[in-house]
Order: sequence, then C-alpha cells, then structure tokens
Amino acid sequence: MTDGKFEWLSAPTITAPLGWMADGVYAGIKTYGEEPRYDVGVLLSDRDCAVGGIFTQNRVCGAPVTVTRERVSAGRARGIIANSGCSNVAMGERGIADAREMARLAAVKSGVDAPQMLVASTGVIGRPLPMEKLDAAIAKLQPSRDGGTAFSRAIMTTDTVQKNRGVSFTYAGVKYTVAGVAKGAGMAHPNMATVFCFLTTDASVQSSALQAIVKRVGDLTINMVDVDMDTSTSDMMLAFANGAAGGPDLTNDAEGLELLEGAIHAVALALAKDLARDGEGAKTLIEVVVEGARTLADARIAARTVVSSPLVKTMITGRDPNLGRVLMALGRSGAEVQLERLSVWIGRHCAFQNGTATALELKTISQEMAAPDVQLRAHLGLGDASATAWGCDLTEEYVRVNAHYTT
Amino acid sequence: MTDGKFEWLSAPTITAPLGWMADGVYAGIKTYGEEPRYDVGVLLSDRDCAVGGIFTQNRVCGAPVTVTRERVSAGRARGIIANSGCSNVAMGERGIADAREMARLAAVKSGVDAPQMLVASTGVIGRPLPMEKLDAAIAKLQPSRDGGTAFSRAIMTTDTVQKNRGVSFTYAGVKYTVAGVAKGAGMAHPNMATVFCFLTTDASVQSSALQAIVKRVGDLTINMVDVDMDTSTSDMMLAFANGAAGGPDLTNDAEGLELLEGAIHAVALALAKDLARDGEGAKTLIEVVVEGARTLADARIAARTVVSSPLVKTMITGRDPNLGRVLMALGRSGAEVQLERLSVWIGRHCAFQNGTATALELKTISQEMAAPDVQLRAHLGLGDASATAWGCDLTEEYVRVNAHYTT
Repeated sequence: MTDGKFEWLSAPTITAPLGWMADGVYAGIKTYGEEPRYDVGVLLSDRDCAVGGIFTQNRVCGAPVTVTRERVSAGRARGIIANSGCSNVAMGERGIADAREMARLAAVKSGVDAPQMLVASTGVIGRPLPMEKLDAAIAKLQPSRDGGTAFSRAIMTTDTVQKNRGVSFTYAGVKYTVAGVAKGAGMAHPNMATVFCFLTTDASVQSSALQAIVKRVGDLTINMVDVDMDTSTSDMMLAFANGAAGGPDLTNDAEGLELLEGAIHAVALALAKDLARDGEGAKTLIEVVVEGARTLADARIAARTVVSSPLVKTMITGRDPNLGRVLMALGRSGAEVQLERLSVWIGRHCAFQNGTATALELKTISQEMAAPDVQLRAHLGLGDASATAWGCDLTEEYVRVNAHYTT
Repeated sequence: MTDGKFEWLSAPTITAPLGWMADGVYAGIKTYGEEPRYDVGVLLSDRDCAVGGIFTQNRVCGAPVTVTRERVSAGRARGIIANSGCSNVAMGERGIADAREMARLAAVKSGVDAPQMLVASTGVIGRPLPMEKLDAAIAKLQPSRDGGTAFSRAIMTTDTVQKNRGVSFTYAGVKYTVAGVAKGAGMAHPNMATVFCFLTTDASVQSSALQAIVKRVGDLTINMVDVDMDTSTSDMMLAFANGAAGGPDLTNDAEGLELLEGAIHAVALALAKDLARDGEGAKTLIEVVVEGARTLADARIAARTVVSSPLVKTMITGRDPNLGRVLMALGRSGAEVQLERLSVWIGRHCAFQNGTATALELKTISQEMAAPDVQLRAHLGLGDASATAWGCDLTEEYVRVNAHYTT
C-alpha cells in the first residue's frame, strides 16, 4: 500500500478531520460495573456527507442495522447516534420504531434532517431500548471538535482500551485527514458481540466511490478479524466523507482516490489489529498469512480458519510451536490444500516444507512465541492468491469473562 | 427409534458380540504422563466380516485413513490394529508404507490376509510411527474374548473415561449383540483431535447394507458431536458384522435390518453423548434440538452452529440463560431463520416465542442449568426438518488442557 505517504496522527480521534464534532454522555443504559460509563454518543458533520457502509451478515440483525443500512443506501448522511448497553435486537416492529425514534431525537437536537441521522446500538439482545433515558441523554449531548474521545468511550463495551486511529496526507496542495474509531471484538459482556468501526474524512468523494472503498477495505481489514467466530447481530463499518478539507471531488481522480483508499485502508487495518489485540482475555495478536492459494476465496477461508481454530489459539496461549494444529486447520478450512505443495512457517521458522516436517528448535521458537505478536504463514503452492487474518489467543480469562458475567 | 426393543449390556465391551476378540498392550509410543498406558490394540473377528465406514473430511488426512478407507471399500475385513500417541499424519509416502506395514505385522501375527487388517492411528501429527516399538508390541498382543477393555484403553488419549456401550436384541429366534467403543473428542493432548468409533456385531449382513447404515447412523450421532469445531485428520467410524450369532443374512430382511440399524444407532448415540460429555474440561453435556427447519441441511447446520458457539458454550459454563447468544448463533448458522416464526427453549422454559422474548425467571433457570445435561431447543417454524447435536461447555480447564501441554 501507499502507507509511507501517510502521516499518523499523534492524538487521533474521530473528529480530527475538518468539520467533524462528537460527544458522549452517560444515560444509565450500561448498568454493569461500578462506575457510570458513557453509553450514548453522537458523531456529527457540519455539512452533508457521502457515506458508505458494510453490515453484519447475521440473519438475525438488529433494528439499528436495518434502519442504518437503508439510510446508507440513499448515500447522504450528517452523522450517527450510537449507544452501548442495549442492542435493540429481536424486538420486532417496536425495535424498528425505537431505532427511528432514537435517530429522530438526535436529528432534532442536532438540527439535521431525520433521515440523515444514522443509528447504531450494541449490548443486550432481546430487551427494549430505554427510550426515556435515551431522550434525556440525547438532550445533554453537546457535540464539539473535542468530543471524539467521549464518543469513543460511549461505544465501548468491555474493550479494555479506546481504539482511535488516524492519518493525514497531502494531495494536490490540499491536506486531507482520515480518522477512525472502533469497538471490539472483545465480547466483554455476555450479550455483546459487536464490532463497530466508524471512519471520517474531510475529503470530498461521491458515495458510490466511498461505498466501493469501504467494501474493499472492510474485506481486507475488519472482516478478517476473528476473536471467537461468533458473528454479532449489530456489526457495522461506516465511512463518512464531508469534503471540509476544501479539495475538489476525488471520485474521478484516480491518483487522489487511490491515496484516499490507501489512507482509509491504513486506518482500518490499524483498528482491525487493535480489535484483535484487545479480544477478550487476549494476550497475543495472531497474524495468519496464507499465500499461494488457488483462489482469493481459498486464501481468505484458510487464513480465517487457522486464526479462529481453538486448537491454534491455545497453542499460541501455551507458546507451543505445534505444526500439527496448523496443518489440521488448513485441512479442514475447505480451501484446496495439497500436502506435498504446502509449506508452513511459525514466526520466522519454516516448520513444514513441501510436504515434510522440518527439524525445529522447539525451545527457541517457544521463547519467540512469548512476543505480543505471533505470525503463522502458509504457502499453499497452488496459485497466486493471498490473504491475511488477525485474531488472538484463547485464554482462561476469555472463559472467565464470558462465563462469569451473567444477564 | 426402536430403542425399547434393545437390552443394554451391563458390562459392554467391543468383544461382547460372538466371535470377537481383542487386546491392548503398552508399546511406549504414548510418552506423556507418569505411568505407562496401553497404546497399541487389536480387534479381531474369528471369521470374515462385512465392514462399513465413514472417515474424516479434513483434506489433510492421515495415512491410516487412506489405507483403511481403501480396504473398507473392498467390503471385507477381519479386524483392526490401532495405536495412540502418533497419528502418522503428514508423513508422505513413508506414512502410507508405515501404515501398511503396521497392518501387515498385525495380520501375520493374527494369521489373516494382510488386506483384511484395517489400521487406525491417533496422536502427534508430523512424526514417523516408531516401527520397532510397534513390531515388538504387536508380537505381544494376545487377543481374547476378555480383551475389550484393554483395547478401549489402548485407543484413549486424554479421554477421562473409557467409552464402551452395547445392546442385544432377539429377532426371529436369534439373539444378536451390537457393541461399540469410542475415543474422544476430548482433545487431550495438544496434537490429538481424533474421534474413533468402532462397532461390532455378530449379525450377518452384506457390506453394502452395513455401509449405508454406518453413513445414516454416523450422520445422526458421531457427526453431530462438536467439542471445539476442529476436525481431526484421523477420524473414523467403522462397523463390522461377522455373522457369528448364527442367524440368516439380514440384508434383504427389512424388519431385521431395521432392528439392526436401530441397535447400531442406539449404541452410536450413547457413544456420541459419552464423547460430548467427556470433552476436554467439560462439565456439562449440551444437547441442541432444532425443529421446524426448511431443510435437513438447515436443521443440521443450525444445531451444530449453536452447540459449537463459544458464546453459547460459555453461557452454559456460567449457567446464564442468555437468549441473545442462542439467537445470534442461529442467525449466523446459514440456516434460513425468520425471527417472527422462531421459538426458543432453554431447558423446559420457552424464552422466545414467535419473535418475542418472554419474561423468564432467570434465577430458576440458572439453577436448573447446573444439571449435568442442558437442552436448548429451537423451532424455526419454516418446515418439518429436525436435527440434534451434542457438545459441551467451554471451561477454563479446556484452555489449560490445550495450552499447557506442549509438544
């Protein structure tokens, strides 16, 4: 990618691009834990934006997903109102009405047209949104240029760290900024399993081009993160472009559009790794690279299967360079695999070469596996397609987090 | 099923049917742990048998799977030689030659034709079979009518209990016996992930009919067990019929064949539940019943997805009647699901009815979930297909077992 052309922001928040404001407040929805934590946030552009988005593939999807997907397809938006603590999933017609009402309240408060306010919720499934609390909280929102951190806190569930990333780049004399915020992939509360990734930029681009960028970037980043194979009912990744940087529309400028996509990719990739690294109970980021696959679909499913295998995850937990588990996961992935063409690396060590296990210095490799990042790489020897997936180790802490919090 | 027609054996072993002998010895292959444990076993019929089998779908499969699959397709066998501690997987041509040699040694020792001796191995992937140790151990095998327990010990890895089940039934004046042995589904040693299920009977039936029975029964039992989604490279389920009970061939006797299939189903189902219950670190057997699916494939994938979801597993660990996780898993399963037609039960309590969450007494249900068996049931309201899957909860002990044993 064109990563070298981008300057990473030292204090990135979702409001770093020009024309963006945000805020977060405590509404009393997120009731677990000791102290009040922000649970309602708004992200707002000072002008009309292009928007693109991708959404959960789960057939049980939340009312906010349904409402926001429809609004994104119209291609214009001004911002999004989001909450944590209640996902508004499996609530039938009432859920749809509540999601629309939540967006309407935020739109009225912000002085924008209701259909231009998107909506996202994460939290307990099967309980109604507490509309009175939401109404009171939305009235308190004061979006500002400094509110990015408050917004990122408002969408956290049991994420242990905020996830904010951003880059800037200059093209044709104009300085552009792309920023993003994500929440995890740590399941945190037993009912929460949602990935949100919101990206903002002050570049000008049409929604059709932005939608295509979000789809491509999402498939290379957020959609390649796997904490525990469960697919949330509320996942969404959205990108907003408001043009506040003042440059010309980049839609038909191939070089400028490529730079913008590169910047969005860099931010989304950094957030994807942040999500994997902060998986529940995780101590290690696992990166799985599959090369030489017959097809891209093969490369993707092979990488995802290895990174999500409980036996691969626990071999990383135990720092055990266990070639057999990697072979097993590749073999069951559904991708075409021929042992005699296959090579596998654990970290920088080749463990299996063209069908034969190599003699490994297990102790050395085990010590290297204590690093915070571990890479597994496979070359299938069958073609040119490649893919990378990110995940995390499976620890006793994961079980504790997911078993011992109860509804 | 015709379960009521079968009498469960009080001390079932694989040699309970007439004409069957077995033994197990310690060869020194299974080196972990303190004390020597049997790791080579033989199962032998005193006469020619019909045989049917199903095998792992993993594209990386062990040499013994390749050799045994080919021999089963010939339809006749006399027995099987099996070992634990080394799976003979990913060893290329040498692996095939070693598997054939292991079978040949057992055939010579037993005085049977080499192609009629099947072979199975479970254990570490990517290491050669220790042929000298095997040779010495096979020479010590003394198969007898009392050797069923020794055989079941020889194929165990970290199974915490032996799994032997058997039934007898009388048809047309002849008493028939069906027995089975299985090993788990507890991954136990980090490299071991194999399910073996071997079934014997003294009924007479042709291999083509037996093969069809094994396929149908396997799909309803062993293939519906899911401990952690990882598919072994060495799984196999085999049924042998030697006719030693003296009855006529049942192949074209619809009633007799149905009884035989019912008996094989009953034994395989009991073993499937034994496997799930003894999953690594497991404290609870989870049974997931999906009814009202549009297609059988939908029912099967929905049941398997729910039973294997880490978030469902940990909700059972935590005794948390967490409807949202069940809805999430159904929704991501790929099966057609329409919320407004869907109903879900946790134990005997309806938690979701035709699209609406019910008011549950969470405390009562949580107490009931402390039982050793917990059932989750979903009615999709879309058709007539149903399926049942079995799994186990995910505990901190699972992580310890799989992370802390190292190669």
